[in-house]
Amino acid sequence: MEYTSRGAKKIRLLGISGSLRRGSYNTALLRAAEALSPQDVGLEMFDLSDLPLYNGDLEAGGDPVSVSDLKRAIREADGIVFASPEYNHSFSGVMKNAIDWASRDRGPGSLAGKPVTIVGAGGMSGTARAQMHLENVLSETGSLVMTKPGVLIANPWDRFDADGRLEDEGTREVIADHIRKFRDWVLDIGSRSQSLAA
Amino acid sequence: MEYTSRGAKKIRLLGISGSLRRGSYNTALLRAAEALSPQDVGLEMFDLSDLPLYNGDLEAGGDPVSVSDLKRAIREADGIVFASPEYNHSFSGVMKNAIDWASRDRGPGSLAGKPVTIVGAGGMSGTARAQMHLENVLSETGSLVMTKPGVLIANPWDRFDADGRLEDEGTREVIADHIRKFRDWVLDIGSRSQSLAA
Repeated sequence: MEYTSRGAKKIRLLGISGSLRRGSYNTALLRAAEALSPQDVGLEMFDLSDLPLYNGDLEAGGDPVSVSDLKRAIREADGIVFASPEYNHSFSGVMKNAIDWASRDRGPGSLAGKPVTIVGAGGMSGTARAQMHLENVLSETGSLVMTKPGVLIANPWDRFDADGRLEDEGTREVIADHIRKFRDWVLDIGSRSQSLAA
Repeated sequence: MEYTSRGAKKIRLLGISGSLRRGSYNTALLRAAEALSPQDVGLEMFDLSDLPLYNGDLEAGGDPVSVSDLKRAIREADGIVFASPEYNHSFSGVMKNAIDWASRDRGPGSLAGKPVTIVGAGGMSGTARAQMHLENVLSETGSLVMTKPGVLIANPWDRFDADGRLEDEGTREVIADHIRKFRDWVLDIGSRSQSLAA
Protein backbone atom coordinates (compact mmCIF):
# COMPACT_ATOMS: atom_id res chain seq x y z
CA MET A 1 0.00 0.00 0.00
CA GLU A 2 1.01 3.57 -0.62
CA TYR A 3 -0.04 6.72 1.17
CA THR A 4 -1.62 9.59 -0.71
CA SER A 5 -0.77 13.21 -0.06
CA ARG A 6 -3.57 13.31 2.52
CA GLY A 7 -2.19 10.26 4.30
CA ALA A 8 -4.99 7.90 3.26
CA LYS A 9 -3.96 4.40 2.29
CA LYS A 10 -3.89 3.66 -1.43
CA ILE A 11 -4.61 0.06 -2.39
CA ARG A 12 -2.44 -1.21 -5.23
CA LEU A 13 -4.14 -3.75 -7.48
CA LEU A 14 -2.51 -5.63 -10.33
CA GLY A 15 -4.64 -6.52 -13.36
CA ILE A 16 -3.54 -9.54 -15.40
CA SER A 17 -5.29 -10.36 -18.68
CA GLY A 18 -5.09 -13.85 -20.13
CA SER A 19 -5.55 -12.53 -23.67
CA LEU A 20 -2.77 -10.83 -25.64
CA ARG A 21 -4.72 -9.43 -28.56
CA ARG A 22 -5.11 -5.68 -28.69
CA GLY A 23 -8.91 -5.81 -28.95
CA SER A 24 -9.31 -8.28 -26.05
CA TYR A 25 -12.55 -7.91 -24.09
CA ASN A 26 -10.77 -9.12 -20.95
CA THR A 27 -8.07 -6.48 -21.23
CA ALA A 28 -10.85 -3.97 -21.91
CA LEU A 29 -12.65 -5.22 -18.80
CA LEU A 30 -9.56 -4.54 -16.69
CA ARG A 31 -9.23 -1.08 -18.21
CA ALA A 32 -12.85 -0.43 -17.32
CA ALA A 33 -12.14 -1.64 -13.77
CA GLU A 34 -9.20 0.77 -13.60
CA ALA A 35 -11.36 3.68 -14.74
CA LEU A 36 -14.19 2.75 -12.35
CA SER A 37 -11.98 2.20 -9.30
CA PRO A 38 -12.58 4.40 -6.26
CA GLN A 39 -10.00 7.08 -5.50
CA ASP A 40 -8.17 5.01 -2.92
CA VAL A 41 -7.49 2.20 -5.40
CA GLY A 42 -4.84 2.16 -8.12
CA LEU A 43 -5.06 -0.62 -10.68
CA GLU A 44 -2.04 -1.28 -12.89
CA MET A 45 -1.82 -3.79 -15.72
CA PHE A 46 0.83 -6.43 -16.30
CA ASP A 47 1.28 -7.51 -19.93
CA LEU A 48 2.09 -11.23 -20.30
CA SER A 49 3.33 -10.92 -23.93
CA ASP A 50 7.04 -11.19 -23.13
CA LEU A 51 6.92 -14.28 -20.91
CA PRO A 52 8.66 -17.35 -22.35
CA LEU A 53 7.04 -20.75 -22.11
CA TYR A 54 7.79 -22.26 -18.71
CA ASN A 55 10.92 -24.41 -18.86
CA GLY A 56 12.70 -25.71 -15.77
CA ASP A 57 16.08 -25.65 -17.56
CA LEU A 58 15.64 -21.97 -18.45
CA GLU A 59 14.58 -21.24 -14.88
CA ALA A 60 17.66 -23.04 -13.52
CA GLY A 61 19.84 -20.49 -15.32
CA GLY A 62 18.07 -17.62 -13.56
CA ASP A 63 14.70 -16.00 -14.20
CA PRO A 64 14.35 -14.14 -17.51
CA VAL A 65 13.67 -10.42 -16.99
CA SER A 66 9.98 -10.76 -17.85
CA VAL A 67 9.60 -13.43 -15.16
CA SER A 68 11.40 -11.34 -12.51
CA ASP A 69 9.18 -8.41 -13.50
CA LEU A 70 6.04 -10.52 -13.04
CA LYS A 71 7.13 -11.84 -9.65
CA ARG A 72 8.03 -8.32 -8.49
CA ALA A 73 4.73 -6.85 -9.73
CA ILE A 74 2.85 -9.54 -7.78
CA ARG A 75 4.86 -8.91 -4.61
CA GLU A 76 4.28 -5.16 -4.84
CA ALA A 77 0.53 -5.50 -5.30
CA ASP A 78 -1.97 -5.64 -2.44
CA GLY A 79 -4.28 -7.74 -4.59
CA ILE A 80 -4.59 -9.19 -8.08
CA VAL A 81 -7.50 -9.13 -10.53
CA PHE A 82 -7.29 -12.00 -13.04
CA ALA A 83 -9.30 -11.65 -16.25
CA SER A 84 -9.21 -14.47 -18.76
CA PRO A 85 -11.16 -15.52 -21.81
CA GLU A 86 -12.48 -19.07 -21.89
CA TYR A 87 -10.70 -21.29 -24.42
CA ASN A 88 -11.65 -24.95 -24.60
CA HIS A 89 -13.59 -24.96 -21.32
CA SER A 90 -10.68 -23.51 -19.34
CA PHE A 91 -8.76 -20.27 -18.92
CA SER A 92 -6.05 -19.42 -21.44
CA GLY A 93 -2.72 -21.21 -21.71
CA VAL A 94 -1.15 -17.76 -21.67
CA MET A 95 -2.55 -17.19 -18.16
CA LYS A 96 -1.67 -20.70 -16.96
CA ASN A 97 1.89 -20.28 -18.19
CA ALA A 98 2.20 -17.03 -16.23
CA ILE A 99 0.87 -18.66 -13.07
CA ASP A 100 3.23 -21.62 -13.53
CA TRP A 101 6.16 -19.17 -13.54
CA ALA A 102 4.82 -16.97 -10.74
CA SER A 103 4.01 -19.90 -8.47
CA ARG A 104 7.70 -20.77 -8.22
CA ASP A 105 8.00 -17.78 -5.89
CA ARG A 106 6.63 -18.87 -2.51
CA GLY A 107 8.10 -16.01 -0.46
CA PRO A 108 6.36 -13.12 1.30
CA GLY A 109 4.05 -11.20 -1.04
CA SER A 110 3.95 -13.98 -3.64
CA LEU A 111 0.79 -15.70 -4.88
CA ALA A 112 0.90 -17.74 -1.66
CA GLY A 113 -1.36 -15.77 0.67
CA LYS A 114 -2.08 -13.04 -1.88
CA PRO A 115 -5.66 -11.71 -2.08
CA VAL A 116 -6.93 -12.27 -5.62
CA THR A 117 -10.19 -12.18 -7.54
CA ILE A 118 -11.35 -13.49 -10.90
CA VAL A 119 -13.39 -11.73 -13.57
CA GLY A 120 -14.03 -12.68 -17.15
CA ALA A 121 -15.74 -11.73 -20.37
CA GLY A 122 -16.67 -14.07 -23.16
CA GLY A 123 -19.15 -16.42 -24.76
CA MET A 124 -22.57 -17.37 -23.54
CA SER A 125 -21.53 -18.42 -20.02
CA GLY A 126 -19.28 -15.42 -19.36
CA THR A 127 -16.22 -17.71 -18.81
CA ALA A 128 -17.87 -19.79 -16.04
CA ARG A 129 -15.82 -22.92 -16.75
CA ALA A 130 -12.57 -21.00 -17.16
CA GLN A 131 -13.17 -19.43 -13.76
CA MET A 132 -13.75 -22.82 -12.11
CA HIS A 133 -10.42 -24.13 -13.41
CA LEU A 134 -8.69 -20.95 -12.32
CA GLU A 135 -10.16 -21.32 -8.82
CA ASN A 136 -8.74 -24.86 -8.67
CA VAL A 137 -5.31 -23.58 -9.66
CA LEU A 138 -5.36 -20.64 -7.24
CA SER A 139 -6.24 -23.01 -4.40
CA GLU A 140 -2.90 -24.75 -4.97
CA THR A 141 -0.95 -21.51 -5.16
CA GLY A 142 -2.45 -20.77 -1.74
CA SER A 143 -3.96 -17.48 -2.85
CA LEU A 144 -6.91 -15.96 -0.97
CA VAL A 145 -9.57 -15.96 -3.68
CA MET A 146 -12.57 -13.66 -3.36
CA THR A 147 -15.16 -15.73 -5.21
CA LYS A 148 -18.21 -13.60 -4.44
CA PRO A 149 -19.65 -11.62 -6.06
CA GLY A 150 -18.78 -13.14 -9.43
CA VAL A 151 -18.17 -11.16 -12.59
CA LEU A 152 -19.14 -13.16 -15.68
CA ILE A 153 -19.71 -10.96 -18.70
CA ALA A 154 -21.58 -12.93 -21.37
CA ASN A 155 -21.78 -11.69 -24.97
CA PRO A 156 -19.26 -8.89 -24.36
CA TRP A 157 -19.63 -7.66 -27.96
CA ASP A 158 -23.01 -6.23 -26.89
CA ARG A 159 -21.48 -4.31 -23.96
CA PHE A 160 -18.21 -2.86 -25.26
CA ASP A 161 -17.89 -0.47 -28.20
CA ALA A 162 -15.47 -0.97 -31.10
CA ASP A 163 -12.71 0.79 -29.16
CA GLY A 164 -13.08 -1.47 -26.12
CA ARG A 165 -14.96 1.04 -23.99
CA LEU A 166 -17.48 -0.51 -21.63
CA GLU A 167 -20.72 1.23 -22.55
CA ASP A 168 -23.34 -0.93 -20.85
CA GLU A 169 -24.42 0.91 -17.69
CA GLY A 170 -25.45 -2.21 -15.76
CA THR A 171 -22.10 -3.86 -16.45
CA ARG A 172 -20.23 -0.71 -15.40
CA GLU A 173 -22.02 -0.83 -12.05
CA VAL A 174 -21.18 -4.55 -11.62
CA ILE A 175 -17.48 -3.83 -12.20
CA ALA A 176 -17.39 -0.77 -9.97
CA ASP A 177 -19.14 -2.72 -7.20
CA HIS A 178 -16.74 -5.64 -7.57
CA ILE A 179 -13.65 -3.46 -7.25
CA ARG A 180 -15.10 -1.71 -4.17
CA LYS A 181 -15.83 -5.08 -2.56
CA PHE A 182 -12.39 -6.39 -3.46
CA ARG A 183 -10.80 -3.29 -1.91
CA ASP A 184 -12.78 -3.86 1.29
CA TRP A 185 -11.78 -7.51 1.28
CA VAL A 186 -8.06 -6.70 0.84
CA LEU A 187 -8.35 -4.22 3.72
CA ASP A 188 -10.26 -6.72 5.88
CA ILE A 189 -7.60 -9.41 5.39
CA GLY A 190 -4.87 -6.87 6.09
CA SER A 191 -6.55 -5.68 9.28
CA ARG A 192 -7.09 -9.24 10.52
CA SER A 193 -3.37 -10.01 10.07
CA GLN A 194 -2.46 -6.84 11.93
CA SER A 195 -4.88 -7.55 14.75
CA LEU A 196 -3.52 -11.10 15.18
CA ALA A 197 0.05 -9.82 15.08
CA ALA A 198 -0.67 -7.08 17.64
CA MET B 1 -2.06 -44.85 -41.27
CA GLU B 2 0.83 -46.19 -43.30
CA TYR B 3 1.40 -49.61 -44.76
CA THR B 4 4.48 -51.64 -43.88
CA SER B 5 6.40 -53.68 -46.47
CA ARG B 6 4.17 -56.64 -45.64
CA GLY B 7 1.05 -54.58 -46.23
CA ALA B 8 -0.02 -54.47 -42.58
CA LYS B 9 -1.39 -51.17 -41.36
CA LYS B 10 0.96 -49.05 -39.28
CA ILE B 11 -0.71 -46.85 -36.68
CA ARG B 12 0.86 -43.41 -36.36
CA LEU B 13 0.75 -41.92 -32.88
CA LEU B 14 1.88 -38.44 -31.90
CA GLY B 15 3.36 -37.92 -28.43
CA ILE B 16 3.08 -34.42 -26.93
CA SER B 17 4.84 -33.60 -23.67
CA GLY B 18 3.71 -30.66 -21.55
CA SER B 19 7.20 -30.24 -20.09
CA LEU B 20 10.09 -28.63 -21.98
CA ARG B 21 13.00 -29.48 -19.71
CA ARG B 22 15.46 -32.04 -21.01
CA GLY B 23 15.15 -34.29 -17.94
CA SER B 24 11.32 -34.26 -17.96
CA TYR B 25 9.72 -37.44 -16.63
CA ASN B 26 6.76 -36.92 -18.94
CA THR B 27 8.97 -36.70 -22.02
CA ALA B 28 10.80 -39.79 -20.71
CA LEU B 29 7.44 -41.51 -20.29
CA LEU B 30 6.61 -40.87 -23.96
CA ARG B 31 10.05 -42.16 -25.00
CA ALA B 32 9.38 -45.30 -22.98
CA ALA B 33 6.00 -45.64 -24.71
CA GLU B 34 7.75 -45.32 -28.07
CA ALA B 35 10.24 -48.05 -27.18
CA LEU B 36 7.53 -50.32 -25.77
CA SER B 37 5.10 -49.88 -28.69
CA PRO B 38 4.17 -52.98 -30.68
CA GLN B 39 5.60 -53.31 -34.19
CA ASP B 40 2.50 -51.99 -35.90
CA VAL B 41 2.65 -48.71 -33.97
CA GLY B 42 4.96 -45.79 -34.63
CA LEU B 43 5.08 -43.04 -32.01
CA GLU B 44 6.67 -39.72 -32.92
CA MET B 45 7.20 -36.78 -30.62
CA PHE B 46 6.25 -33.15 -31.16
CA ASP B 47 8.34 -30.59 -29.28
CA LEU B 48 6.33 -27.57 -28.06
CA SER B 49 9.40 -25.38 -27.38
CA ASP B 50 9.02 -23.17 -30.45
CA LEU B 51 5.35 -22.30 -30.08
CA PRO B 52 4.64 -18.64 -29.35
CA LEU B 53 2.09 -17.65 -26.74
CA TYR B 54 -1.38 -17.71 -28.29
CA ASN B 55 -2.30 -14.29 -29.64
CA GLY B 56 -5.28 -13.70 -31.90
CA ASP B 57 -3.54 -10.76 -33.60
CA LEU B 58 -0.53 -12.94 -34.47
CA GLU B 59 -2.87 -15.66 -35.73
CA ALA B 60 -4.74 -13.14 -37.91
CA GLY B 61 -1.48 -12.53 -39.81
CA GLY B 62 -1.15 -16.24 -40.59
CA ASP B 63 0.01 -19.15 -38.44
CA PRO B 64 3.68 -19.07 -37.39
CA VAL B 65 5.61 -22.07 -38.78
CA SER B 66 5.63 -23.87 -35.41
CA VAL B 67 1.83 -23.63 -35.27
CA SER B 68 1.38 -24.93 -38.83
CA ASP B 69 3.76 -27.76 -37.95
CA LEU B 70 1.71 -28.67 -34.88
CA LYS B 71 -1.59 -28.63 -36.78
CA ARG B 72 -0.09 -30.76 -39.56
CA ALA B 73 1.42 -33.27 -37.12
CA ILE B 74 -1.99 -33.64 -35.46
CA ARG B 75 -3.76 -34.15 -38.80
CA GLU B 76 -1.24 -36.76 -39.89
CA ALA B 77 -1.52 -38.76 -36.67
CA ASP B 78 -4.04 -41.55 -36.13
CA GLY B 79 -4.01 -40.80 -32.41
CA ILE B 80 -2.36 -38.54 -29.85
CA VAL B 81 -0.78 -39.38 -26.49
CA PHE B 82 -0.72 -36.37 -24.18
CA ALA B 83 1.72 -36.46 -21.24
CA SER B 84 1.82 -33.53 -18.86
CA PRO B 85 3.24 -32.80 -15.44
CA GLU B 86 0.85 -31.39 -12.85
CA TYR B 87 1.53 -27.75 -11.98
CA ASN B 88 -0.81 -26.00 -9.55
CA HIS B 89 -3.50 -28.69 -9.69
CA SER B 90 -3.73 -28.59 -13.48
CA PHE B 91 -1.74 -29.55 -16.56
CA SER B 92 1.01 -27.23 -17.77
CA GLY B 93 0.42 -23.84 -19.35
CA VAL B 94 2.78 -25.00 -22.09
CA MET B 95 0.34 -27.80 -22.98
CA LYS B 96 -2.73 -25.56 -22.68
CA ASN B 97 -1.15 -22.99 -24.96
CA ALA B 98 -0.49 -25.69 -27.58
CA ILE B 99 -4.08 -26.91 -27.38
CA ASP B 100 -5.38 -23.33 -27.63
CA TRP B 101 -3.46 -22.97 -30.92
CA ALA B 102 -4.32 -26.43 -32.25
CA SER B 103 -8.02 -26.13 -31.43
CA ARG B 104 -8.35 -23.32 -33.97
CA ASP B 105 -8.16 -26.02 -36.63
CA ARG B 106 -11.58 -27.72 -36.76
CA GLY B 107 -11.13 -29.45 -40.10
CA PRO B 108 -10.77 -33.16 -40.94
CA GLY B 109 -8.02 -34.82 -38.91
CA SER B 110 -7.87 -32.01 -36.34
CA LEU B 111 -8.38 -32.41 -32.59
CA ALA B 112 -12.12 -32.49 -33.35
CA GLY B 113 -12.86 -36.20 -33.64
CA LYS B 114 -9.24 -37.24 -33.05
CA PRO B 115 -8.64 -40.31 -30.85
CA VAL B 116 -6.46 -39.21 -27.91
CA THR B 117 -5.31 -40.52 -24.56
CA ILE B 118 -3.74 -38.98 -21.48
CA VAL B 119 -0.81 -40.23 -19.42
CA GLY B 120 1.22 -38.48 -16.77
CA ALA B 121 4.10 -38.76 -14.34
CA GLY B 122 4.59 -36.68 -11.24
CA GLY B 123 4.02 -36.09 -7.57
CA MET B 124 2.08 -38.24 -5.16
CA SER B 125 -1.14 -38.47 -7.19
CA GLY B 126 0.53 -39.18 -10.55
CA THR B 127 -1.01 -36.02 -12.11
CA ALA B 128 -4.63 -36.99 -11.29
CA ARG B 129 -5.90 -33.41 -11.11
CA ALA B 130 -3.98 -32.34 -14.22
CA GLN B 131 -5.61 -35.19 -16.12
CA MET B 132 -9.11 -34.18 -14.98
CA HIS B 133 -8.60 -30.63 -16.29
CA LEU B 134 -7.18 -31.98 -19.52
CA GLU B 135 -10.24 -34.23 -19.95
CA ASN B 136 -12.47 -31.18 -19.53
CA VAL B 137 -10.51 -29.33 -22.20
CA LEU B 138 -10.46 -32.25 -24.63
CA SER B 139 -14.24 -32.58 -24.31
CA GLU B 140 -14.56 -29.10 -25.78
CA THR B 141 -12.10 -29.79 -28.60
CA GLY B 142 -14.39 -32.71 -29.44
CA SER B 143 -11.59 -35.26 -29.21
CA LEU B 144 -12.36 -38.95 -28.57
CA VAL B 145 -10.60 -39.47 -25.24
CA MET B 146 -9.68 -42.99 -24.14
CA THR B 147 -9.91 -42.54 -20.37
CA LYS B 148 -9.45 -46.19 -19.38
CA PRO B 149 -7.09 -47.66 -18.38
CA GLY B 150 -5.44 -44.66 -16.73
CA VAL B 151 -1.70 -44.10 -16.54
CA LEU B 152 -0.78 -42.11 -13.43
CA ILE B 153 2.88 -42.52 -12.48
CA ALA B 154 3.41 -41.34 -8.91
CA ASN B 155 6.91 -40.66 -7.57
CA PRO B 156 8.55 -41.05 -10.99
CA TRP B 157 12.02 -40.47 -9.49
CA ASP B 158 11.77 -44.01 -8.10
CA ARG B 159 10.97 -45.51 -11.51
CA PHE B 160 13.24 -43.74 -14.01
CA ASP B 161 17.04 -43.74 -13.86
CA ALA B 162 19.18 -40.60 -14.06
CA ASP B 163 19.16 -40.76 -17.87
CA GLY B 164 15.36 -40.93 -18.06
CA ARG B 165 15.16 -44.65 -18.80
CA LEU B 166 12.08 -46.33 -17.36
CA GLU B 167 13.53 -49.12 -15.24
CA ASP B 168 10.58 -50.21 -13.13
CA GLU B 169 9.25 -53.42 -14.66
CA GLY B 170 5.67 -53.00 -13.44
CA THR B 171 5.50 -49.51 -14.89
CA ARG B 172 6.94 -50.72 -18.20
CA GLU B 173 4.12 -53.26 -18.44
CA VAL B 174 1.50 -50.59 -17.63
CA ILE B 175 2.82 -48.40 -20.46
CA ALA B 176 3.09 -51.23 -22.97
CA ASP B 177 -0.45 -52.37 -22.15
CA HIS B 178 -1.79 -48.82 -22.47
CA ILE B 179 -0.28 -48.35 -25.93
CA ARG B 180 -1.66 -51.72 -27.11
CA LYS B 181 -5.13 -50.80 -25.84
CA PHE B 182 -4.91 -47.36 -27.43
CA ARG B 183 -3.90 -48.95 -30.75
CA ASP B 184 -6.92 -51.28 -30.54
CA TRP B 185 -9.15 -48.36 -29.70
CA VAL B 186 -7.89 -46.26 -32.63
CA LEU B 187 -8.51 -49.25 -34.92
CA ASP B 188 -11.95 -49.88 -33.41
CA ILE B 189 -13.04 -46.28 -34.00
CA GLY B 190 -11.62 -46.41 -37.52
CA SER B 191 -13.46 -49.65 -38.33
CA ARG B 192 -16.75 -48.32 -36.94
CA SER B 193 -16.53 -45.25 -39.20
CA GLN B 194 -15.79 -47.46 -42.19
CA SER B 195 -18.64 -49.82 -41.39
CA LEU B 196 -21.10 -46.93 -41.05
CA ALA B 197 -19.84 -45.38 -44.29
CA ALA B 198 -20.12 -48.68 -46.19
